[in-house]
Formats: sequence, C-alpha cells, structure tokens
Amino acid sequence: MELLLKQRDLEFLLYEFLDTESLLDNERYREHDRETLDAVIEAGKKLAEDKFAPFASLLDANEPIFEGGEVKVIPELEQAIKAYTEGGFTGIAAESRYGGMQYPWVVAQAACAYIAAADVSANAYGFLTHAAINLMSKYASEEQKKVYMKPLVEGRFLGTMCLSEPQAGSSLSDIKVRASRSDEGHYLMSGTKMWISAGEHQLSDNIIHLVLAKIPGGPPGVKGISLFIVPKFRLEADGTPGDKNNIQLAGLNHKMGFRGTVNTVLNFGEKGDCHGYLVGEENKGLFYMFHMMNEARVGIGMTATVLGYTGYLHSLQYAKDRPQGRHPGDKDPSSQQVPIIEHADIKRLLLAQKSSVEGSMALVLYCAWLLDKELIAESEEERVRINTLLEILTPIAKSWPSEFCLEANKHAIQVLGGYGYTRDFPIERFYRDNRLNPIHEGTHGIQGIDLLGRKVSMQDGRAFKLLLTEFSETIEQANEFNSLRSHVEVFNSAVRLIEGVTKKINEEKKGKGDTVALANSGVYLDTLGHIVIGWIWIKQAITVFANPSRRDKSAAKFYDGKLRACDYFYKYEMPKVEERCKLLLELDVTCLEADPESL
Amino acid sequence: MELLLKQRDLEFLLYEFLDTESLLDNERYREHDRETLDAVIEAGKKLAEDKFAPFASLLDANEPIFEGGEVKVIPELEQAIKAYTEGGFTGIAAESRYGGMQYPWVVAQAACAYIAAADVSANAYGFLTHAAINLMSKYASEEQKKVYMKPLVEGRFLGTMCLSEPQAGSSLSDIKVRASRSDEGHYLMSGTKMWISAGEHQLSDNIIHLVLAKIPGGPPGVKGISLFIVPKFRLEADGTPGDKNNIQLAGLNHKMGFRGTVNTVLNFGEKGDCHGYLVGEENKGLFYMFHMMNEARVGIGMTATVLGYTGYLHSLQYAKDRPQGRHPGDKDPSSQQVPIIEHADIKRLLLAQKSSVEGSMALVLYCAWLLDKELIAESEEERVRINTLLEILTPIAKSWPSEFCLEANKHAIQVLGGYGYTRDFPIERFYRDNRLNPIHEGTHGIQGIDLLGRKVSMQDGRAFKLLLTEFSETIEQANEFNSLRSHVEVFNSAVRLIEGVTKKINEEKKGKGDTVALANSGVYLDTLGHIVIGWIWIKQAITVFANPSRRDKSAAKFYDGKLRACDYFYKYEMPKVEERCKLLLELDVTCLEADPESL
Repeated sequence: MELLLKQRDLEFLLYEFLDTESLLDNERYREHDRETLDAVIEAGKKLAEDKFAPFASLLDANEPIFEGGEVKVIPELEQAIKAYTEGGFTGIAAESRYGGMQYPWVVAQAACAYIAAADVSANAYGFLTHAAINLMSKYASEEQKKVYMKPLVEGRFLGTMCLSEPQAGSSLSDIKVRASRSDEGHYLMSGTKMWISAGEHQLSDNIIHLVLAKIPGGPPGVKGISLFIVPKFRLEADGTPGDKNNIQLAGLNHKMGFRGTVNTVLNFGEKGDCHGYLVGEENKGLFYMFHMMNEARVGIGMTATVLGYTGYLHSLQYAKDRPQGRHPGDKDPSSQQVPIIEHADIKRLLLAQKSSVEGSMALVLYCAWLLDKELIAESEEERVRINTLLEILTPIAKSWPSEFCLEANKHAIQVLGGYGYTRDFPIERFYRDNRLNPIHEGTHGIQGIDLLGRKVSMQDGRAFKLLLTEFSETIEQANEFNSLRSHVEVFNSAVRLIEGVTKKINEEKKGKGDTVALANSGVYLDTLGHIVIGWIWIKQAITVFANPSRRDKSAAKFYDGKLRACDYFYKYEMPKVEERCKLLLELDVTCLEADPESL
Repeated sequence: MELLLKQRDLEFLLYEFLDTESLLDNERYREHDRETLDAVIEAGKKLAEDKFAPFASLLDANEPIFEGGEVKVIPELEQAIKAYTEGGFTGIAAESRYGGMQYPWVVAQAACAYIAAADVSANAYGFLTHAAINLMSKYASEEQKKVYMKPLVEGRFLGTMCLSEPQAGSSLSDIKVRASRSDEGHYLMSGTKMWISAGEHQLSDNIIHLVLAKIPGGPPGVKGISLFIVPKFRLEADGTPGDKNNIQLAGLNHKMGFRGTVNTVLNFGEKGDCHGYLVGEENKGLFYMFHMMNEARVGIGMTATVLGYTGYLHSLQYAKDRPQGRHPGDKDPSSQQVPIIEHADIKRLLLAQKSSVEGSMALVLYCAWLLDKELIAESEEERVRINTLLEILTPIAKSWPSEFCLEANKHAIQVLGGYGYTRDFPIERFYRDNRLNPIHEGTHGIQGIDLLGRKVSMQDGRAFKLLLTEFSETIEQANEFNSLRSHVEVFNSAVRLIEGVTKKINEEKKGKGDTVALANSGVYLDTLGHIVIGWIWIKQAITVFANPSRRDKSAAKFYDGKLRACDYFYKYEMPKVEERCKLLLELDVTCLEADPESL
C-alpha cells in the first residue's frame, strides 16, 4: 500500500482535474511530453522512498547540532541532499539555459511532494533553493544570474530566505538589518536575522542568502526595504567560493518539529565586512519578495498538505489491518473482531482526513498550475487575470491546508489510538512538523489581514469578483449533473452569503476604516477557505462525472472515494459557512474591545 | 504573573461558583475549615512551583530509560515524588484512618491541579496512586485495606491501573490476561499488559498494580473480567516488600509527550509464579472499574484542562510583553510598536483559550464537587440522583477539555509565533502532552459511544432528563439578570434542539437498533459538550452577577474577564450547536456506508 501519496490521485489531479498536458503546447515546455512528466514524478517518488523516507525518523531524533562553530548533520541527510541535487531536483523547474529541467511548476510540485511527504524537514533545503532560483530568475541582473544560477540549479550552492529578525517576525516594517553602500558597488551588511532555515550547513559548497535589509537614509517602514544577495563565501573570479563573507552563526533554534531543517540565527558583518549585492533597485525589496510570495505561500500549503496526506495514508493502512471491536449489532464477545475501518467513527476520522488532504492537494496543484499559466500567458491581460486570481487564492492555499491538514494529522493519531501517540509510528512526527505551517511564511493572522485587508478589496474588488466568476462557471458546469444538485445548492448559497459579508465589510472599511473590519479577518479567512475548498470539491466531482470511464471496474472505487469525500465535505464542513457568515455579518467586536487587563 | 493557574479563578470556582465550604458541614470533613482548604491549595501551588515546574523541561528531554533490566529516571523526578509524598499528597483525599488528609475531592483536585500544570507527566505517579486508593477504599476487603492502604497513602507504595493489552485497547472484552485460582487462595496471573503508566520504577518501595484479568472457565466477554491486586513485590507478614512477584518489564513505550511518565509493557508470570489477589467477587472486575471511571475520567478532563490553562497564561504573558506591529489605523512606520495583545486577532486567540480553559476548569471542578456530594449524600435517593448526573456528565468532562484545551494549546503556540514552536518555551510541550488526553481512559470515540449508546438512554433516559432539569433551573436563575437575556435565549434554543435530536436518536435506536444512531455518536458528543460548557458559562455569569461586590475596584477586572469569556463563547462557539444539531437530525450515513476500499 502507498504510504506517501496516492499516485492515482496525482494522476487524476494533473491530467483529469487540470489539463496539465495542454501546458506542453507552449514553447517553454516543448522538450517535454506526458512521458517525461510521468518520469520525473516517478523519479521524485523513488528518491523519496529510497533516500528520504528511510531516515526521516532518525533525522528527527538527531537534529543538526552546533559544534565547534559548525553545524553538523547526520550523514544520511548529506547523502539524501546529494541524491536530490544529482537527480536534478534543485533545478527541476529552472530554465534549461542554467542547466535546469524546465518542468512546469505544477509537475515539479507533484514530484517534490513525494520528497516532502517522505521527510518534510530534509525537503526544506531544496524548497528554499527553488525559491531563491525563482526569485533570482525574475529579478536578478543578467550578470548576477550568470554567476549564481548554474551552481544553484546544480545544487552546488543552496539558498535561503532571510526576512525575519528577533524583534520583527510578522512586522517586516521594523527590520533593522542594514546595508550600507560601499564605494566598490557592493553593500556592507550588518545586523541579525532570525529563523533562517538552512542558514548554515556543510551540505553545499556555498549558501546564497537572499536578505531583506534597509539602506541607511532610505524611507521608513516597508518602503525602505531592499533585497540583497549575500553569499556565505564570496566568489572568486571563476565563480568558485573564496573567502568567508563574515556571516556568523549566532545559534540554532530548537523546534518541536521540522527538526532536520537547521534553523539559525545569523549575524551579518559582526566580525568583518559582509558583502551584499543589491537585487534590482533600492527600496523595492519587499515588492520583489511579495512577487515571490504567491509561489512560496502555495508551497507552504503544499507542505502542510503532504504531511496531512501521508498521515492519512498511514492511518488508513492501520485501520484496515488492526482488528478490534465488533459492529454495534454483534453482542457475541466470542465472535471475531473486525478491522477498525469497519467502525463508523473511524471512517468519519478517515473521511475528515481524506476530504481535507485531497481537497488541499487539488487546491495547491491548481494554484501551481495557475503559476504556470501566468508564466506562459499569451497576453498581458490574461497574465494579469491569472495573477489576480492567484493573489486572492494564495492566503487560502497557504492557510487552509495549514489548519486542516494539521487537524487531519490529529485525526490520524486518533485512528491509531495509543500507538499513534508513540514514536514507533511516524504520525506524531507529521503532527509536530505540521504545526509549523500556520506560523511561517506569514502567520495565519497575517494571511487573514492579507486577504481581508488587501486582497478582497484591491483594484476595486477585482480579485474577489474574479473568484465569484470562477465560482459561477463551476456552478454552471455542475448543473449538468443531477447528482450534484444538492451540493451545488449548498455551495451557491454559501457563495451568496460570503458575497453579502464581503460587501458589508468593504462598506465598513470605506466608512469607518479598517479597525472593526480587520478584527474579523481570522474568521473571514477560514470561512472563505471553506468555500474555496467546497468549490474545489465540486470541481473534482464534475471531473469524476464527466469521465466516461468512471464506471470501469478498475476505476470505480477510486472515483467513488472522490465522491464520498465530496459528500462528507458537504455534509460535515460546508454547513459551517452559514453559521460563520452570520457571525461575520455582525461585525463583532467582542475580541477587539476586550480589555487586556481583564484577560 | 501567575503562569500555572490563576489563583483568583480557583477561589471564584471553589467558593463562589461552588459552595465548597458547605461540604465542611459534613461529618467526613469536620477536621477542615476554610483555612485548611486554602492551606493545602497553597501547598500544592508551592510544591508545583518549587519542585515540579523547574525540571519539567529537563524531564521531557530525558525520559525514563530501560537499562540493565531497570527503569532509570532523572534524580529531579525522584526528589519531586519524594516531596509530593512527604507533603501528604498521595493521601490528600484518603481517609484519616489510613493516614490520609481526608480533604474533599474537589479541593484535592484544585491543589493537585497546580502540580499537573507544572509537570503533567510527573504528576501521573500521584494521579494513578489516587485512583488505586479510591478503588481500594471502595471495593477491597478490610484485610486488603489493612495491608495496602497505609503504604499507598504514605506514598511508600505507588499504584497503577492495568487494563489495556497489546491486542485490546478500547475493547476490554478481548483481554487475554489470565488469573488461575491456586490452592492457597491467591490467583496465578499470566499474560501481557500494555500502556501501563508508572508500571515500573524505583520511585517507591513497591508498586501495586490493579489488574483486570479473566479467570479460566468464566463467562466470555466483559462479564468474565475480574479485578486483582498484583504487587511488584509480595508482602512479608509485617507488610514490608519481600520477594519479587515475577512481573517482567517487557519494554517501554516512547511517546510524543507525557515523557516523564514511564509507560510500560508488563509480562505477568512469565518467569515464575505471579500472585494476584482478587478484589471483591469474581467476574465483577469491570463493574468495579467502571465505578471508578467517573472519577478517573473527570481526572483526565482536569489533566487536559490544566495543560490548556497554563498554556493560556504563558501566551497571555507573552502577548502583554511582546511589542510588534501597530493598530490598523496607524500607518506611520516610525511610531512605536504596540504589545501584540492590542491586536484583535491575538485577543481572539486569547479569548478562545480563556473560554475553553476556564469553562473546562469550572466543569471538572463541578464534577469533582459532585463526587464529594455523592460520597456524603444523606439519602440513597440523593446519592443516586448525583451519581446519575455524574454518569452523563463524565464523558463530556473527559472529552470536551481533551479536545478544546488541546485546541487552546494550539492557539497558545500561535500567539508566540515562531517562538511558541521552539523548545525554549514550554507551550510546545503542553501541546504534545495534551495530545494524549483524547486517547487514554477511553478514546474520544469510546466516550461518544458511552454517551449516546448508554448514558442518554439508560434508565429510560433518566440521566438525560436530569441534565435537562439542571439546564432549566439555570435558565430560571439566569432570567433574573437582564444582561444575560440574549445568551439565555441562545442556550435555551440549543437545549431544545438537543432535546429533539436525542428524542429522534432514541427512537431510531428503539426502532432499528444502534447502528445508524451510534454512527453519529462522535458529533453528538461534541455537540452536547458545547451545550454543557455553554451551561457552565451561564452558571459562571450568574455567579458574577449575583455577587454584590463585583463592581469593587479590586474585583472588577476579574469579573469583567469572566463575562467577556462568556460573551466570546456565546458569540463564537454556541452558534455551532444549531448547525451540528441539523446534521444530527439527518441521522447521516455518509461515514457509516463508506466503502473501505474506496478510501
């Protein structure tokens, strides 16, 4: 039985739910065909199973340590990263002119999903390098690309993202790291960055930090943030690593999960000059970073999703294998016990997981596919349309899986009972790992403010309207299938409710400012999230019904499972939308007006 | 700032919300007065702060190990247990004729709550010994009591509960441990018990296992279960430990949390005779055990509560101290940052915690107080009434805090952001520890079946009707306070809904059997749980409004906080009841009828 991801589901999502193959018509992907797509996913799966999964527990129990000024990791991690880079995975989606495999992002995400499912904390090194590559492809100068892209793509250099600081996590406006212009063109970096994953290690010849910093004399707040390339070792003329660039490892953070990802506090320029190289223009750093946010945040959604997904499959296997108890009607204690999957409440825990993890997987792959569509859009109008849709979906694709796939891991533990709570099974690790996802790359609260404070009202509500149009199109398609009628009614009514809520909140914002409106952003985020996942489930159901071969013997169980999970979501989850919308319509101030001293 | 529990809240609950002092009118507690009650709570607090809290992280990182056939623990745990037993805490509620302090159970629970909040896994040794003492006081023979009670009360012996086996966790009907009659009056024990907390250690001179086993030739299933006292060392004539009783430690379980509680697999009689001593009559073991269930399960509810509670206080302190970000209206990045408690969404995370943990604490103390009332009831009719109420409240007092105080810990981590996810703060430990509570002493699913399959319909629905009567009385009292009107309306409507749901489910059970009805037990459990907590919040609010001094300057903030948390629960949580009741009324079979092969 598959324990990482369900391959049949990925095929369904890539080739039935999404028209991934049609991406190949584009010039950019002309080297690829269905066979090469399948091959890289298969390679990701094999790499995950052979090199990552076997040592995931070991890595969790033996996190990187700080010894003699260096970060030491277990050799299995080194071997896995070596296999990853040799397999071309650092450059899986990078352009071929830099040595990349130039796969569509959605396919790269599917392939790497296996690796993340096998060991999410070991996958982070590649994850961050992808982010660095993507950011640099977009905003670095040709000269910078010439120097850095190839070694990053080949995995000789690995990347990081340096945003947070000890005093400024969610509030980037208050970062203190400074970059002072030097006479030689580079900048001199100084200050401390915190929570830097993969910030120091010996897994690669060099580490390329992408650092947000302020140039003295620049505008205050986020408008004065610039982006810099800051390598661990400065480069020689031939591009090979040379002198140390004075980035001091000040300490490691020790976390509940994600233990294989070394997480660092870094001091820049404390003991000597630390050179940084400006990306793009001064004071546009946050703009560049935000342009990468969609991709990075959807990536976190994927991370949360795969942890939920592999947890689901582990608990499914256990439920099928473990005999215990009898059906309610069977009062004979000497009769044989049944596998626990026969118990309705266990099935409920499984369906809750399935509807969350398969719903999340469909959403994050849909967003990854949108990123491809954006990249290859044939007109600016089309590109803007896709980007706008992505803008509003991103906080949801980040936050919903982070919340509900963590909940799925909670259920997975419950299916195993006491065993699930032990370290003999990996599910407790998934649960610990997954707890990070509502925190990093913008906390749940920040996603709510991003959604309600910016996205739903931006460009006169264009993004929100676009989403409503998508919803309407889906409703129209779904109307062709009688079996979907009751779900479509529920969905339609949920959409009308959130439309009313959004209108009311926008009016409040216009009339009285953000204070009361934003006090409701957390609830709004979760509620619109449910509606989006409900939409994604109807889209999946349409895909099932539209498939003429869905009654074939080999396919029937799979499709039945999809429809059952959709039913579950509509019975057990969608009704929550109405109740939350009622609350949102009140523009409640219970929290806002609570006196801190009374808490 | 207090970080374990809020003393003012305990005082409110014990002496305003409950009339704990009136218990002292009873003969049983004649040695006590308000001063001695306060003194033991103060002693529990001090013990917790001085001896347990300081090493909780250390113990978590250094769990007991199995070395050279023995269990080794860090010395700090030994010292803490020593201080605990010397302080009289093993015998805190035990009768004075055995050397106990004979405190009311509700007071004992409040005092021990501090210790559990400080280190829940170290508290487990005392927790289990309390359970052993209570069970033996009720069902052991006078002779057995003479031998075992004093050393248990004095903490020279510690206790365990041996129910589960590797193949039988939730299904006690299928236990295999055997007890064969010997000619000498004792029984010979054989077989394996699993998940036995405190099952082996050197913390006491002896360990007294209370073991469920089957006597060969007895009835099948639960009707053939008997209860035995099985000491680690057999006792000499003078009551001191003598020869080993052949209980073999087969291994330790390694858990995600609760790491300080050694958790064992024990083989009985594998390498020689293992003597067990029958408690009460043969084949009545489960009956005895079930009579202790209310207390043990309410105790788990308390365990979950204190973890949620201390997590809340830690996150509250952090939120007050940590500056970050600005109010939505403040667009000036050079203005001073505000403490994060000023942000509405942080207040939401705090109020969600407060309403859960203070609601849970009120419920579990109320149940503990009912246990006292049951013990000292002046008529059999009164005793039965209280017991019946406890029967129906117990699955809720166990499950609701287990679910929602775990959720509270999740929120507490979120308040701290990245810091909350590190092991530098104890909240991630609370979160890991708390994940056990929905599993042990009957999983969440088992509680649901207990509630819906047994408790709500037993004695022709007597327990449920009794609960409705309690609800009605509270509604009547609340009607005196205008400010409570809207909450009472919501509560009343929730009660009417669950009444209808329960009627419908009972009819279904009578007409068609348990299958479909019990398929909905998980949702029913959570829903009635919300209503009970809603009831408890109204009772707390009544207590506030009824207090003439609530506007006094020194008290106002505390009472305002109570009312605010009540408001939060009614705005954000109670509306869920209506939506869940709609689902329950459908007697949904989506989960029941799911084909395992399609999952």
